[in-house]
Amino acid sequence: MSEPLYISPESIAGHYTVLDRIGNLGPGQGFLRAAWSDEETAAMRHIEAEATAAGLVSRWDAIGNLIVETAGNFSEWIETGSHVDTVPGGGNYDGVAGVVAGLEAILAIHRSGTPLQRGLRLRIWRGEESSTFGVVSGGSRAAFGLLTPDTLRSIYRGKTLAEAIKEQGGDPELIRSGRAAIPEAEEQGIAGYIELHIEQGSVLEAGGFDLGIVTGIRGSVRSWVKLTGAFDHSGATPMGAKWRHDVNLAMAYMQVRLDGLAGKAIEAGEDIVQTVGVVNSNRHFNDTLPGLYDNAVAKVSGAGYFSHEVRGCYAGEVREFVEAARQLIRQTAEEFGVAVEIDEFSSVSGIARMDDGLQHLLADACKRQKARFTRLPSGAWHDAAVLHDRPRNDGSKIPVGMLFVPCKGGISHSPEEYASPEALALGATVLADALLELVR
Amino acid sequence: MSEPLYISPESIAGHYTVLDRIGNLGPGQGFLRAAWSDEETAAMRHIEAEATAAGLVSRWDAIGNLIVETAGNFSEWIETGSHVDTVPGGGNYDGVAGVVAGLEAILAIHRSGTPLQRGLRLRIWRGEESSTFGVVSGGSRAAFGLLTPDTLRSIYRGKTLAEAIKEQGGDPELIRSGRAAIPEAEEQGIAGYIELHIEQGSVLEAGGFDLGIVTGIRGSVRSWVKLTGAFDHSGATPMGAKWRHDVNLAMAYMQVRLDGLAGKAIEAGEDIVQTVGVVNSNRHFNDTLPGLYDNAVAKVSGAGYFSHEVRGCYAGEVREFVEAARQLIRQTAEEFGVAVEIDEFSSVSGIARMDDGLQHLLADACKRQKARFTRLPSGAWHDAAVLHDRPRNDGSKIPVGMLFVPCKGGISHSPEEYASPEALALGATVLADALLELVR
Repeated sequence: MSEPLYISPESIAGHYTVLDRIGNLGPGQGFLRAAWSDEETAAMRHIEAEATAAGLVSRWDAIGNLIVETAGNFSEWIETGSHVDTVPGGGNYDGVAGVVAGLEAILAIHRSGTPLQRGLRLRIWRGEESSTFGVVSGGSRAAFGLLTPDTLRSIYRGKTLAEAIKEQGGDPELIRSGRAAIPEAEEQGIAGYIELHIEQGSVLEAGGFDLGIVTGIRGSVRSWVKLTGAFDHSGATPMGAKWRHDVNLAMAYMQVRLDGLAGKAIEAGEDIVQTVGVVNSNRHFNDTLPGLYDNAVAKVSGAGYFSHEVRGCYAGEVREFVEAARQLIRQTAEEFGVAVEIDEFSSVSGIARMDDGLQHLLADACKRQKARFTRLPSGAWHDAAVLHDRPRNDGSKIPVGMLFVPCKGGISHSPEEYASPEALALGATVLADALLELVR
Repeated sequence: MSEPLYISPESIAGHYTVLDRIGNLGPGQGFLRAAWSDEETAAMRHIEAEATAAGLVSRWDAIGNLIVETAGNFSEWIETGSHVDTVPGGGNYDGVAGVVAGLEAILAIHRSGTPLQRGLRLRIWRGEESSTFGVVSGGSRAAFGLLTPDTLRSIYRGKTLAEAIKEQGGDPELIRSGRAAIPEAEEQGIAGYIELHIEQGSVLEAGGFDLGIVTGIRGSVRSWVKLTGAFDHSGATPMGAKWRHDVNLAMAYMQVRLDGLAGKAIEAGEDIVQTVGVVNSNRHFNDTLPGLYDNAVAKVSGAGYFSHEVRGCYAGEVREFVEAARQLIRQTAEEFGVAVEIDEFSSVSGIARMDDGLQHLLADACKRQKARFTRLPSGAWHDAAVLHDRPRNDGSKIPVGMLFVPCKGGISHSPEEYASPEALALGATVLADALLELVR
């Protein structure tokens, strides 16, 4: 047997001394490494340099994703991966943590000298964040031929996605023609994929857990709910739905009732998370929707809208909840005498269940490394979800697992995003332990 | 006894053939006769011309209000009055109806040849609407020396209120020096004031009433309620106040609970009307409040605000309700872990009780003229409220009454504002009947 795996907080922190300088917007301003940007490439090149210096080999796929892997020919590969792009003003852990931990995990196994039965590979995906070009998981989806050509016309900072890809050495023609960047044989050889990521929530921190094993990835159904009532004199129109067709009050009752509906679903054991994130606070809508700014202190409200988002791991459960929510919204609208229009603008199916074998493997690795862990669904989307859906020639799907590291206060997409080197080092060690089980 | 009073719908409609052309913004666009504007003066001049042609005398007070009255010296006067200015895009009935009806009522008594024990006077007040210079009841308040000098600096269409007053022949120095436009002796001689106005609500129309006798005029307390919570990932942050400091949800619970609070007050017989007219929909606030546009579909809401208006005739009742509402708002904020700031920006005491004698007189006049009537408070503010508060040398106050005419659908401050010539003629006849009782 080889020596025990150990990844030090110092080795994690070492990467950050370099990465903290790439795309840094200044003290308290966070980072900006856009999808297919010079900053993203610079961060990837740091990983490539460290990896090759330590004896791994590297290559770039046709769309610009970086691959770092053990040398040698293997028919099967165990992969890990994540991304280094950030939302504008985001932190340096969402994505980066998984790349750094993944590299250190592979290096730890490489250093251990354990003979490998399968190859080990780290993928640094381009542009996972949708906040620059409006395309989520751009790199991983393009790798599997899942990006539609219309996405190439998205513009960020005056540049189309096609131009940005080209500038970073990728070939947008691939997307235009619907081809995958990963060759068929390579894809068939992926025997498993485990991604480490910060939690982006505070369940682990609040519970005092070192790590979380992800049970599923929540999908979402998002809609705009637009209401039209009647503007009336606030002093001369008596209260009550007989007299008032009050949009603000109807929206309030809708939210409170929806909150009750979600409470019942959660009590019944469903994985449902409901959010009304926007109430009359989308600048574009406010400027273009007729009537929104006609609301006034001394008028009964006649126009308004809100966003309704339902997330959950189980697509069927989510759809069922959405339908019940809409019925409740329509009933409430009728009760208040206001017209309602519900526009669904986005729907992504969740991953009901991460691979059971990998969940067990990760749990065993946690126990071996003495990490306190819990199981929880991922509320956020990740590249792992793209791989999870990939069918293989034998009818199976690529087994996918995810490991969560707690982040401070559950904060992400913010300059305050933080995960300690200690927490990341423990996560990387558990990841290495699990990967080692799969390759030796 | 003189011949029975009768004012025909045709005589009302006759005035409108002229007034409908003054300040008309075009088909479906409503009217704009700003305070102290050429259009307001033109409408006043029409009334003056009609009045003097029929044997009344006219004069303009020092601030530009028009006075039309019976000839002769009287120690006591019975007055009626209203305004001819409009909100931008408003209708031609709010104010104008009372001026036309008042003129026709005085003319009907004048024509009847009844010997007068008291003089009859119609006041056409300048600028009752606050929507142009931001000053409510500008003309009537200036007439009694109640406008503060700072109001003169208000600007509308690039003109200060002082400049506008001067252009229409008034003397802004009066306001600057705090003097009244109505001489002391004239004020002491006002033995009563009855204003006819459209209801600006639909209680009369819905109840099938011809007229309404106003029991009081609602004052108001207006506040902004600003909330600060925490922006969090909508998928990764579990539901519930333990995890989320959700401003949108807190605002919804506040509104629903406030609605319940108002319902209880109304059940207990209080004259309370509560309105949340603005939820994140004041353009200026949205652009200047930090964080409002950081709300997003996929975030727990971290910032928001709403307006809270409470109206009622009884100032003490209103204040008590406002305090209870604020306690409820603060409790709910605490429950949701959001910070709350309540800024009261306006407070006007209501008129608890219009003069009992005049209410009885109006009721008797309704019965004599076979008008179906009900008693109701005025939800909107009127010049009548300014006169109501005027103390006289003998310690009493000027008795003030108001008569409401139904308006179509309860709509006002809109191009669709409408009251039929028949409804206005009946109102004018009842007004004439009541005025006659007071002067003969």
